Amino acid sequence: MEGFKTKGLVIVNTGNGKGKTTAALGLVLRASGWEKRICMLQFIKNQGANGGEIRMARKLGLEIIPCGDGFTWNSKDLDQSTSLARVAWQEAQRRILSGEYDLIILDEFTYTLKLGWLDPKEVLEWLRANKPSGLHLVITGRDAVPELIDYADLVTEMREIKHPYKEGVPAQMGIEY
Amino acid sequence: MEGFKTKGLVIVNTGNGKGKTTAALGLVLRASGWEKRICMLQFIKNQGANGGEIRMARKLGLEIIPCGDGFTWNSKDLDQSTSLARVAWQEAQRRILSGEYDLIILDEFTYTLKLGWLDPKEVLEWLRANKPSGLHLVITGRDAVPELIDYADLVTEMREIKHPYKEGVPAQMGIEY
Repeated sequence: MEGFKTKGLVIVNTGNGKGKTTAALGLVLRASGWEKRICMLQFIKNQGANGGEIRMARKLGLEIIPCGDGFTWNSKDLDQSTSLARVAWQEAQRRILSGEYDLIILDEFTYTLKLGWLDPKEVLEWLRANKPSGLHLVITGRDAVPELIDYADLVTEMREIKHPYKEGVPAQMGIEY
Repeated sequence: MEGFKTKGLVIVNTGNGKGKTTAALGLVLRASGWEKRICMLQFIKNQGANGGEIRMARKLGLEIIPCGDGFTWNSKDLDQSTSLARVAWQEAQRRILSGEYDLIILDEFTYTLKLGWLDPKEVLEWLRANKPSGLHLVITGRDAVPELIDYADLVTEMREIKHPYKEGVPAQMGIEY
């Protein structure tokens, strides 16, 4: 346990390729094996989402919580997306401060910063001042802003080398969702 | 279910960054949520390994099977690594042909091809001829050989942007293992 407590990492999975959220889900699986206390807040995913990870989370008693409005290009109301993001960020702050978690994942959080729904400077200042030192924090999404990269301990870019959609293959159940 | 059956993807996670195996574990979590039949053969990981994912797999009744000898730079006997890889590949072939799985992950399999423990040409010819069309196959590891990239439908490079070990932070339980 000590290794885990020594240093809570800030991990960012960014880039245009696959695997950003999926790698975060892999950490959920791995950390679950060590009885870690975990939650994932999904900032973009529609609140009615019911993908494989959410079905599995329900089975395992893990907290994976969609709290967005679908992707912005589907969203009818940008103001609504913004206010949903703010509510979700307040929830994230509450959980970060709570001491109830070893690992918190803010899935697709980068977009809230990139799109200006939240102020990157304020968010990063808050995290620097308030994140418990033992808490692992994982943030995913494309276009991580420089302030976030600067704050992170571990940043990986998932880069698309080859993608089947370009050859007309539809999204596959259990893989893409 | 049909979407899943339509096209079994060949997915390769490569590159020098984190998240290759972890993203494959995320697919395990996601596919488990849809009751998919899954196994992961770990080609390098020591047979005595007991990381978070293996502990979790045991709990969930998933098959995550370490069948290697540790990383080559730790391995005392390269001949042994080679013969272990060959045994594991035979096991992989048996499972690929069995029809018992929807998703098979060959974790760190790239090294067996890169290091010449297995012949890339033979392996790829076998896969092209024998992989059931509905089976999703995920292969992870650095330095994917060109023949493998050519065969894959979806290739992602995990690229290291920032890494905490360079600042002296040790591996963290539940995150790295």
